[in-house]
Amino acid sequence: VLRLIREDGVATRTELARLTGLSRPAVAVRVSELITQGLVTERAHGPSTGGRPPVRLAFNGSGGAVLVASLGYSHGHLAVCDLAGEIVVMDETRLAAERGPEMVLPALLDRWAGLLTEAGLSAADVRGVAIGLPGTVEEASSFLEPPGLPRWEGAAIGPVVAQRFPVPVFLDNDVNVMAIGEHHAHRADGVDDLLFVKLSTGIGAGLILGGAIRRGSLGAAGELGHTPVPDGRGVPCRCGNDGCIEAIAGGAALLERARLKRPELADLTELTALARAGDPAVVALVREAGRRIGEVLAIAVNLLNPSIVVLGGDLAGAYDPLVAGVRESVYQRATARATRRLRIEPSRLGDNAGLIGCATLALDQVLAPESIDALIP
Amino acid sequence: VLRLIREDGVATRTELARLTGLSRPAVAVRVSELITQGLVTERAHGPSTGGRPPVRLAFNGSGGAVLVASLGYSHGHLAVCDLAGEIVVMDETRLAAERGPEMVLPALLDRWAGLLTEAGLSAADVRGVAIGLPGTVEEASSFLEPPGLPRWEGAAIGPVVAQRFPVPVFLDNDVNVMAIGEHHAHRADGVDDLLFVKLSTGIGAGLILGGAIRRGSLGAAGELGHTPVPDGRGVPCRCGNDGCIEAIAGGAALLERARLKRPELADLTELTALARAGDPAVVALVREAGRRIGEVLAIAVNLLNPSIVVLGGDLAGAYDPLVAGVRESVYQRATARATRRLRIEPSRLGDNAGLIGCATLALDQVLAPESIDALIP
Repeated sequence: VLRLIREDGVATRTELARLTGLSRPAVAVRVSELITQGLVTERAHGPSTGGRPPVRLAFNGSGGAVLVASLGYSHGHLAVCDLAGEIVVMDETRLAAERGPEMVLPALLDRWAGLLTEAGLSAADVRGVAIGLPGTVEEASSFLEPPGLPRWEGAAIGPVVAQRFPVPVFLDNDVNVMAIGEHHAHRADGVDDLLFVKLSTGIGAGLILGGAIRRGSLGAAGELGHTPVPDGRGVPCRCGNDGCIEAIAGGAALLERARLKRPELADLTELTALARAGDPAVVALVREAGRRIGEVLAIAVNLLNPSIVVLGGDLAGAYDPLVAGVRESVYQRATARATRRLRIEPSRLGDNAGLIGCATLALDQVLAPESIDALIP
Repeated sequence: VLRLIREDGVATRTELARLTGLSRPAVAVRVSELITQGLVTERAHGPSTGGRPPVRLAFNGSGGAVLVASLGYSHGHLAVCDLAGEIVVMDETRLAAERGPEMVLPALLDRWAGLLTEAGLSAADVRGVAIGLPGTVEEASSFLEPPGLPRWEGAAIGPVVAQRFPVPVFLDNDVNVMAIGEHHAHRADGVDDLLFVKLSTGIGAGLILGGAIRRGSLGAAGELGHTPVPDGRGVPCRCGNDGCIEAIAGGAALLERARLKRPELADLTELTALARAGDPAVVALVREAGRRIGEVLAIAVNLLNPSIVVLGGDLAGAYDPLVAGVRESVYQRATARATRRLRIEPSRLGDNAGLIGCATLALDQVLAPESIDALIP
């Protein structure tokens, strides 16, 4: 019943009875339980035709909140989202995953409490918590192997959060939550197969196939940065192989190459700003990086046949030449079948992809029929 | 109820009532409907403890049949399978997909009728039909773009079959049905993420992720043969690019190279026989091809993080040196995370993978709860 109201906008008890095959009294009982839970609202609507005025039901997005955070190695974002998955209040933070859970978690909990107050909400409104981290998460609640984040391994995150907010906690890889967010933003277009590519210091991917994120057998799916580029030999990569796309066209490699021409460049943000400003040397470098990235994406497009490739991450700020370069190579190297109707686009959500993805991840669970059934006595 | 009996081996009405939460009378009604449909059998079991003797229920694999065919460009296999997905009778055929549906379909229907008689079954026992073909199938029942098989495009396969067997018809790509078959053979091991690779004249893949085949947005997923091999430049491929793995290590390329040393070789079957017999020149060639294939599979393993890679197709007959070569490259090139607990193995089902996969594809649909509900008045 909730799914019909929330996802399909079904607004009357009569319609709910028809669609579910439940009796009208059975529908009435469920709807009044959902109203009690604050998940559904009703309001009188339109002129009465005699008898009781018709009442329209609606999903009550403001009937609760989820707390979300998207943490990188050096900084992060956090937010309070409503039950419709929209950001209510958000903030940037210098809290970084590398500082370890014993430092980060309590600080996160305090920051969330502050944001809740700012939003006029309380801990009682919180229905779920979700965090995206730059590591491998085997299950949605157990942290397996965060490369470079040893202190998170096996950390008891759920119990610590539960002391402040006794609700389900979800963890996922940072690129996966961005992919989930972008998928959410494309759901209205009927997109079921989406390849999200995070272009930042490194290069990673998140795979939406058949309408859901696919994490692989150990949560490690989406490793794209160590794909060898044709003609890439001779460029050593930190992974031990050589010719990997990350070593050739990742943000770190690109920044290094750009500094040969523009020694004053401090970071990727400045680099993408120069690209947007049309600096010819930087534009040429970014476009060439896009081409090399496209050669590797052609392989993934052939293998996965997505309907859309979404380019996100810091480098995606250098949108035009980057996307042009990627398109050039993908349409040339991938098969005609795999590229027919394929779109290659920059992120719709930008910096918010991870937060929206965390909210989607949490809400798809806490508003699932089983979870709602468990709430109702 | 049927799923519990079929997949989990639940054998008593009492247990069914406990697991489903249905009342005992409700379970009794459903079970007797399933017995009427021939899908479930019961037999007295064990000594009575007084009162009625305990009765054990079992899924009745022989309560019906599915007709399956796996067609290649030059030859094919067809079979009658029981409802447990086991092959009852099978046959090879020189019916090839390239002869077009107007030729192939009527002949297939006659051959199936013959096999049914041989199995002591009749058309009334048939509950579904499934065919694997070397083309791209967008939906399970509409044939989209069979490369090299223009006559199949848009062919009205369902209606033609329905004149003889008025049951659901399922079509899929030949590599996809092999992947589904191998997944079926590994289901007992809890495998949810399996990469099937068909090594034959060409090279293709089937992706099982999250427990189901993933066909991509237009049914074209699994294209692996046109992945560029590092250092592969200079070898032109029929796709127009150069350095593709298929042009370097596909069956056709391998046969050509082997003939430089063994001019008498007629086909891949003879080549793999020589490899199995230990011919040093052929073994060395096959092992090197395995290494190059492994370089490409490392990319797919990084991206998908399967728990098992299954090698099938004609070349897989040259098992030992091929698998050794593949393993060598995959474990060297793929990341430590992606290869932890990764198995790389030859096909369990061999030539039968496509037939078993077709049976699985059909049975998962015709024995699904919705389909069973529709059968029962």
